[in-house]
Amino acid sequence: MNSYEKLEKAFGRIAAIEEAGAMLHWDMSVMMPHGGAEARGEQMATLKVLAHEQMTAPETAALLDAAEADPPADPWQAANLREMRRRWRHAAAVRGDLVEALSRAGTRCEMVWREARPAGDFAQVRDALAALLGLVRELAAAKAEAFGLSPYEALLDQYEPDGRVAEIDRLFDDLAAFLPGFVDEALAVQRARPAPLPPQGPFPVAAQRTLGEKLMEAVGFDFNHGRLDISLHPFCSGVPDDVRITTRYETDDFVQSLMGVLHETGHAMYERGLPAAWRRQPVGTARGMAMHESQSLLVEMQVCRGPHFLEFAAPLMREAFGGDGAAWTVENLSRLYARVAPDFIRVDADEATYPAHVILRYRLESALIAGDMTVDDLPGAWNEGMKALLGLNVPDDRVGCLQDIHWYDGAFGYFPTYTMGALAAAQIYAAARDAVPGVQDSIARGEFAPLMAWLRQNVHGRGSLLSTRNLLVEATGKPLETEAFKSHLKARYLV
Amino acid sequence: MNSYEKLEKAFGRIAAIEEAGAMLHWDMSVMMPHGGAEARGEQMATLKVLAHEQMTAPETAALLDAAEADPPADPWQAANLREMRRRWRHAAAVRGDLVEALSRAGTRCEMVWREARPAGDFAQVRDALAALLGLVRELAAAKAEAFGLSPYEALLDQYEPDGRVAEIDRLFDDLAAFLPGFVDEALAVQRARPAPLPPQGPFPVAAQRTLGEKLMEAVGFDFNHGRLDISLHPFCSGVPDDVRITTRYETDDFVQSLMGVLHETGHAMYERGLPAAWRRQPVGTARGMAMHESQSLLVEMQVCRGPHFLEFAAPLMREAFGGDGAAWTVENLSRLYARVAPDFIRVDADEATYPAHVILRYRLESALIAGDMTVDDLPGAWNEGMKALLGLNVPDDRVGCLQDIHWYDGAFGYFPTYTMGALAAAQIYAAARDAVPGVQDSIARGEFAPLMAWLRQNVHGRGSLLSTRNLLVEATGKPLETEAFKSHLKARYLV
Repeated sequence: MNSYEKLEKAFGRIAAIEEAGAMLHWDMSVMMPHGGAEARGEQMATLKVLAHEQMTAPETAALLDAAEADPPADPWQAANLREMRRRWRHAAAVRGDLVEALSRAGTRCEMVWREARPAGDFAQVRDALAALLGLVRELAAAKAEAFGLSPYEALLDQYEPDGRVAEIDRLFDDLAAFLPGFVDEALAVQRARPAPLPPQGPFPVAAQRTLGEKLMEAVGFDFNHGRLDISLHPFCSGVPDDVRITTRYETDDFVQSLMGVLHETGHAMYERGLPAAWRRQPVGTARGMAMHESQSLLVEMQVCRGPHFLEFAAPLMREAFGGDGAAWTVENLSRLYARVAPDFIRVDADEATYPAHVILRYRLESALIAGDMTVDDLPGAWNEGMKALLGLNVPDDRVGCLQDIHWYDGAFGYFPTYTMGALAAAQIYAAARDAVPGVQDSIARGEFAPLMAWLRQNVHGRGSLLSTRNLLVEATGKPLETEAFKSHLKARYLV
Repeated sequence: MNSYEKLEKAFGRIAAIEEAGAMLHWDMSVMMPHGGAEARGEQMATLKVLAHEQMTAPETAALLDAAEADPPADPWQAANLREMRRRWRHAAAVRGDLVEALSRAGTRCEMVWREARPAGDFAQVRDALAALLGLVRELAAAKAEAFGLSPYEALLDQYEPDGRVAEIDRLFDDLAAFLPGFVDEALAVQRARPAPLPPQGPFPVAAQRTLGEKLMEAVGFDFNHGRLDISLHPFCSGVPDDVRITTRYETDDFVQSLMGVLHETGHAMYERGLPAAWRRQPVGTARGMAMHESQSLLVEMQVCRGPHFLEFAAPLMREAFGGDGAAWTVENLSRLYARVAPDFIRVDADEATYPAHVILRYRLESALIAGDMTVDDLPGAWNEGMKALLGLNVPDDRVGCLQDIHWYDGAFGYFPTYTMGALAAAQIYAAARDAVPGVQDSIARGEFAPLMAWLRQNVHGRGSLLSTRNLLVEATGKPLETEAFKSHLKARYLV
């Protein structure tokens, strides 16, 4: 074996350890009884440390140097080597004991959060979060030094390779200028029409689940290679050949859960469509979290909340819940599914107000990482921000700063990728409509194959071959912009 | 840290890797879609190899030598060091690539078996089993050489430390001489009475599950530290603070599943009762598979199929299924639960015919490992053996040589521990009755606490402090014998 081939073997082993960790994390969120938390923390911390040790072993560094001195000619192998180096740099910047401490503190804080959240009791999780944040700031400082970035940007780079604050600020400032006026306009349009009729429940969980599975299959989800389960915070996890998505059900409303399921199905289709020849290699993984979110939002927001999909789905919804009458028409459901309504919860937000949720979190986590704010300031700053950005008075932390798992699991620097993904989703779907004539008519018949074939070829199947920027340029003709997103919003909410 | 303390750290890490592997195996059996098998195989093989590497690292051997030169005075630490050396010897006897190949071949064969078994198609799994057996024989040869044992005995030692064929032969020959006559006698007693009335189903799965959970809780199972799920082959897995047991349900019979659940609960109580101060240390683990099976059989066979427990459980059974009338009396249920009936399936077998199932498998696997028999001979030899031992003609391999997961998962040398456990269960329960006056009256009221307190003190909480032999001698006054088991059989089936 030459150096590159030895690296493939080494990184394949590291990926298998990380996959095992992902399955344990899925189990922790979906299956594990509370009393298993401490043992699980030990297991997950041990796997993280082992992966880190394998990555930072002296042989790995030597192999990387040797392979780079005689780089492979094949473009996939060359990209794989580039991504190996990227991962190695992130790992080598951090001491093993910090990796272990972060894993333990994250598991502990997440478990406390699981109890604090429903109780709306920030004080309960305050100490665990402060301890975790302290370690995350150590991590950020170490990576900042190694990469020559700001501490926040160094964290962002973990989720969005080459993502930079300057680009985010440019895009977010543009949105921040556009959206308040747009939201007012959309609300005015909405008010001028009769309110859509809400279908009457209750909507039994079993029927919601069956409908969700049917629509997942229509999108292309293969249950021989994945599962749908329940968790407090919906997510997509697992591995490309065994993708695990979750949702939560409310019996008085099926829309949020169903659209959540379709959202996670978009993530799942990306994972499943990654290049099979590059399993457990860096180049075979998804190209950052912004692209990942673009795929979930493309399926949910661009497609499934739109009128074409609802032509196909409305009869299935009526059948699932015995629905009948004016509330169940495609037109009424379309208006119901594309309703602008400023609210407290990010994951339930419409796409016009969603960026405000992200901008709030981006500002707060930037301040927390920079040390300009402490954990004790968080509830107050959150509530002030919600007032300023969306005009809402947060009644308690349950629907305020306790609502998202991210910080309580140690994920700082992740939030901006949601709105970058929303922009990319609009841009990619516009390109797909141009490239695949009749794609929307197919969707109206429940046929996702033409769309998914194009996505496999232009996004999913390319893994991490290109940078996010080049992937977008090749797929859509331009880097990330706000234009397609704005056009989409206008077409959906102002017409 | 001195050498011993460094070893505690190293073995703690190895145990965390093994725990992660156990959780992945649970998921594979209970949750994983079929298409995830290959990726799971990679993950589990990688963890096995990592644990093996950590164990056989030169530093581990050096630390063991150093610690043994200056052994700890504390008896738990001393026992822990002894068990570390035992594990090290098992690991060091085997090459890393064989560990990896065995893990992969076991996962692959188990997945094929899952399809071959319901189809009764031995040919489908033949090649996978032959490949796996070849590797197991390599393993046996390597360990035989290192331990100075026969290849079969070297495998046995993995499951039953210090278990020896001479002891098994002595006990099994005694049983083989006693049981045929006893079974005839028990059948004659049964025939002389009116047949017990079978309660009429259907017994809905949800009601079976609820009843099972209620009885698990009565025994002492803590759902904050464990789960009950469904799998093809019932088992107990997980970790002491998160014990996962499984069952399978038939709607026309609730007895087998319920007694299976109670059986696995016995295993779970052992795991849960292991000394908490020694989590993830060799001395903190269960004392071999015979003792483990003794705890499941003590709960199921000694207690829960007996009349005292049924006084408590029968009203709950009536309530669960709306049962009423003569079929639901304690007396009728007792006779139904203690019925001798030679049959094809080991896991459904009564305790009088069960040893014949074990003796058959013990003979066959001994021959397979010794090379006196090939995989192709297996179905025929199985069917001949069933005819000779129980007088039954096996109609197809589904209820013949495909019924058990063990061989298809690479577990050869495990089967004898079932019957060793049955003997130990009778011996230990007899000792508990002597030591705890009124223990059976408590059980009749659904109170397991007195029994469990005694078991925690005399068995569960001792972990691997003593050898199986010494543990039994201290708890019951003698090493493993057949007398208590025979007395139990006579008392239950001939009176």
